[in-house]
Amino acid sequence: MARVINFNAGPAALPSAALERAQRELLDLDGSGMSVMEHSHRGKVYEAVHNEAIALVKELLAVPDNYDILFQQGGASQQFAVVPMNLLPPGKSADYIQTGVWSQKAYKEAKVLGTARVAGSSEKDKKFTRVPKQSELELDPNAAYVHLTSNNTIFGTQWFEFPDTGAVPLVVDMSSDIGWAPIDVSKFALIYAGAQKNLGPSGLVVVIVRKDLVEAGRKDIPVIFQYRTHVETNSLYNTPPTFSVYMLRNVLAEMKANGGLSAMEKHNRDKAALLYDALDSRPDVFTAPVEKDSRSVMNVVFTLKTEELEAEFLAEAKKAKMEGLKGHRLVGGMRASIYNAVPREGVAALADLIRKFKV
Amino acid sequence: MARVINFNAGPAALPSAALERAQRELLDLDGSGMSVMEHSHRGKVYEAVHNEAIALVKELLAVPDNYDILFQQGGASQQFAVVPMNLLPPGKSADYIQTGVWSQKAYKEAKVLGTARVAGSSEKDKKFTRVPKQSELELDPNAAYVHLTSNNTIFGTQWFEFPDTGAVPLVVDMSSDIGWAPIDVSKFALIYAGAQKNLGPSGLVVVIVRKDLVEAGRKDIPVIFQYRTHVETNSLYNTPPTFSVYMLRNVLAEMKANGGLSAMEKHNRDKAALLYDALDSRPDVFTAPVEKDSRSVMNVVFTLKTEELEAEFLAEAKKAKMEGLKGHRLVGGMRASIYNAVPREGVAALADLIRKFKV
Repeated sequence: MARVINFNAGPAALPSAALERAQRELLDLDGSGMSVMEHSHRGKVYEAVHNEAIALVKELLAVPDNYDILFQQGGASQQFAVVPMNLLPPGKSADYIQTGVWSQKAYKEAKVLGTARVAGSSEKDKKFTRVPKQSELELDPNAAYVHLTSNNTIFGTQWFEFPDTGAVPLVVDMSSDIGWAPIDVSKFALIYAGAQKNLGPSGLVVVIVRKDLVEAGRKDIPVIFQYRTHVETNSLYNTPPTFSVYMLRNVLAEMKANGGLSAMEKHNRDKAALLYDALDSRPDVFTAPVEKDSRSVMNVVFTLKTEELEAEFLAEAKKAKMEGLKGHRLVGGMRASIYNAVPREGVAALADLIRKFKV
Repeated sequence: MARVINFNAGPAALPSAALERAQRELLDLDGSGMSVMEHSHRGKVYEAVHNEAIALVKELLAVPDNYDILFQQGGASQQFAVVPMNLLPPGKSADYIQTGVWSQKAYKEAKVLGTARVAGSSEKDKKFTRVPKQSELELDPNAAYVHLTSNNTIFGTQWFEFPDTGAVPLVVDMSSDIGWAPIDVSKFALIYAGAQKNLGPSGLVVVIVRKDLVEAGRKDIPVIFQYRTHVETNSLYNTPPTFSVYMLRNVLAEMKANGGLSAMEKHNRDKAALLYDALDSRPDVFTAPVEKDSRSVMNVVFTLKTEELEAEFLAEAKKAKMEGLKGHRLVGGMRASIYNAVPREGVAALADLIRKFKV
């Protein structure tokens, strides 16, 4: 079967070139006579892949020298716990900004481990159709850190300007939009991101953390959960998920070859505009519920007037080889996830379907 | 380049057929038009792979119905912490049997989290050349659990008969020998195993845990680390490492097609005998330091009389396309890891090299 147009929310579409490279090399990486999966993580062949992946993260995201780049496992959901384990000592409190399901889960794990408070929320009638304004936040100037989720896959909102947290470290879960565009890493104290949206396959989390936070991190937790353990060992304390790191390398190499994150931003803004413009042109059938300033360029959430129309639309999309358009069970409707690797022509085809549906 | 003979200690050799299947399906799994890496973990195509992998673990290891099979991340090193987080409540103590580096690391993490004691050790002059006898253990009848490492990759020892711990749950790290032969799962309360030796690629841990332990597990720890979270969600609480689970499925399907674990045991005992017999026939050059009753059938550790001879032997092995024979830096010498996927002819070639070296 030909490759479909993949609008999955994550795991999601990967660049075909990155997959084709993996396919070619799967039984013999770089003439070594072994699959990347069969190489020792302490050997030169894997080490070159590992270090190239770190170097590409550093280059593409312009990570300053006072930050470490780590490869972790367990998904962003594990970082919900590992962040407070490292950064929230007894006697301190952490601020959490609520913009949807993932930020709520992060807050819940922090409360198991220490003192955490909600410093702002855009919740209204159990929905989140925008991100909060700075003026709506009540930040604690003594907080251990402020935590937020940069892009909300389920409700389809995204932060385009991050709040000023002063001297308080800003910790951001960027799982679903890391690499969508250039960012100023120096504004953040810690960034973590599950790879399975923009960067690669699942099973790998990229952590970018300021060195002073690593040094000040708690030492009374298990060694495996201390960021310093992984800094000191170049993320080779124990066996890393070698194939996932290899795929990250392939994806980032593709991203670089295609012009890096500035080109990505243009590509992503263009794709998002195609869809939102199409939706806005058809208020007779379609609604994009997110407020315009907060509309995600990664996850375009929309509804149709009735469930019957939604079913009909999904059936037409399926005929056109489009997959993954059903919205999250919590909000219903539709969701087109248009991460970096989703090609423009696939998005244009969906925009076309929206414009022509029931005309 | 042709595929080499891979004696890596882990990540290690995988069955060629499992890799070839992955290569064929890499851009299009089961006619879905997507890579397994691009499928939603909540979709039917991935779910079928996930459930087949669980069913194969259950079938091949004959896991009784009162056990759950979980897929976790973070390696066995993370289980060193997650086991006591779940199973070691305040006021209780856990027993750890020391047989090498990995069991020591497990013990250290437990001590960070609660009370743990050494219930036995085979250490002598900082080395471990055998596993302890039951009579050497001082087991606490009130311990929360007893922990041991079934196969010690670095020192090359293996348990063939497990100690009787009475009513105290026996927790075993089987990372480096799970699936080497049939076992009676009912003798264990919890088994965990990083996949990257006998089962698949790195980035995946298989946990087999008795249901009563899951139910009695602590609830005052982060949700992500509670075994019950993953039991209740069929290991789909958050995004699993989908490609690693897929590869596990491929490897287990191969194992089943080749006769299951009884056939594996025959195959593994045969390979180990080839090497140990060759080593024992050449006391003029080679030494296998592990006591005969404890000799691992997975990791055959040996030394040569001088470092010069070792370098020469390694060079000859390299010429014969053998990789991964250098011993762990802690013990030096040589190590041939001959996990399930290492073919007999590769091991026979190494045995031949040993028999003919410097004759």
